[in-house]
Amino acid sequence: MTIKQINHIAIVVENIDKALDFWEGALGLQVNHIEEVTEQESLIAFLPSGHSEVELVEPTSSVSGVARYLRKRGPGIHHICFEVDDIQATLARMKSRGVQLINEEPTIGTGGKKIAFVHPRSTCGVLVELYELTAEEPRRRREIIRRMRRRLVRRGVSAGMGLRKFVRSWRSNSSSRVN
Amino acid sequence: MTIKQINHIAIVVENIDKALDFWEGALGLQVNHIEEVTEQESLIAFLPSGHSEVELVEPTSSVSGVARYLRKRGPGIHHICFEVDDIQATLARMKSRGVQLINEEPTIGTGGKKIAFVHPRSTCGVLVELYELTAEEPRRRREIIRRMRRRLVRRGVSAGMGLRKFVRSWRSNSSSRVN
Repeated sequence: MTIKQINHIAIVVENIDKALDFWEGALGLQVNHIEEVTEQESLIAFLPSGHSEVELVEPTSSVSGVARYLRKRGPGIHHICFEVDDIQATLARMKSRGVQLINEEPTIGTGGKKIAFVHPRSTCGVLVELYELTAEEPRRRREIIRRMRRRLVRRGVSAGMGLRKFVRSWRSNSSSRVN
Repeated sequence: MTIKQINHIAIVVENIDKALDFWEGALGLQVNHIEEVTEQESLIAFLPSGHSEVELVEPTSSVSGVARYLRKRGPGIHHICFEVDDIQATLARMKSRGVQLINEEPTIGTGGKKIAFVHPRSTCGVLVELYELTAEEPRRRREIIRRMRRRLVRRGVSAGMGLRKFVRSWRSNSSSRVN
């Protein structure tokens, strides 16, 4: 039962395109892929950094938790996610120590990964996410990137022009869903 | 000129001892060492996680930047630090793109490492630190751990009893310096 590594740092932003001016253009990270995560009502850009990732999260509705966070606090770090090898055992240890959990049982995310959040009240003010990834995750990622590229091509955006085009293309094609 | 990895996530806490109840006891990270960083007026516990670290930062004065942050915002994530291979080149690229820097030139930290902070105004609300480490850093770290263990032994705390004892020992021996 171990913590393997920091999986990602999630940063809530108003506009991924503008955020990439710093995180990609100035800092030098590279966008690996961009994904619309409907259950989180967000558009997420993934920027690998060593063995971890920076995730830029833009709300796609005005009523989601992330959108409310943005209105209340402004842009900034939303949570830190650790990859664990056994999420059930980690949650059990936390419960036995009186840690306040947002998810007492893991929820199942895309590709079967198990996810749980820990309340900032128990962590010194940090929203902590736990991930237990499946062996299938890398394959799922590759499939998302393939689908995204096909979508870009259908919309007349060359994949070679870069993933940032996807955001503009996505936004112009889904403005009715975005508040 | 590349970003190598997330070096650390710094979390400001009121009390390292209490913070370790979650970060070590419940989450399962292990304290590698604890260091009094006088130039930051802080006591810092280092908890490696994969290739990165979580740093728990407790102010040791009431007037430092970290102490003011704690009073204003409460405990939570203070900054994220990226290791870069060429900090001068990274800062030059940022300047050319109009990024607001807290340090236009790197400051020299312990062991000769080069450090610079980027203003949250340019990063979507995130205080970003850049590190260019020296080849000497691992040796310096080992020396700090050795010195800390000697200090524990002098104070009658067995090194085998764990590094958390160091915090209590440190605090009881330096309360006149801590507000």
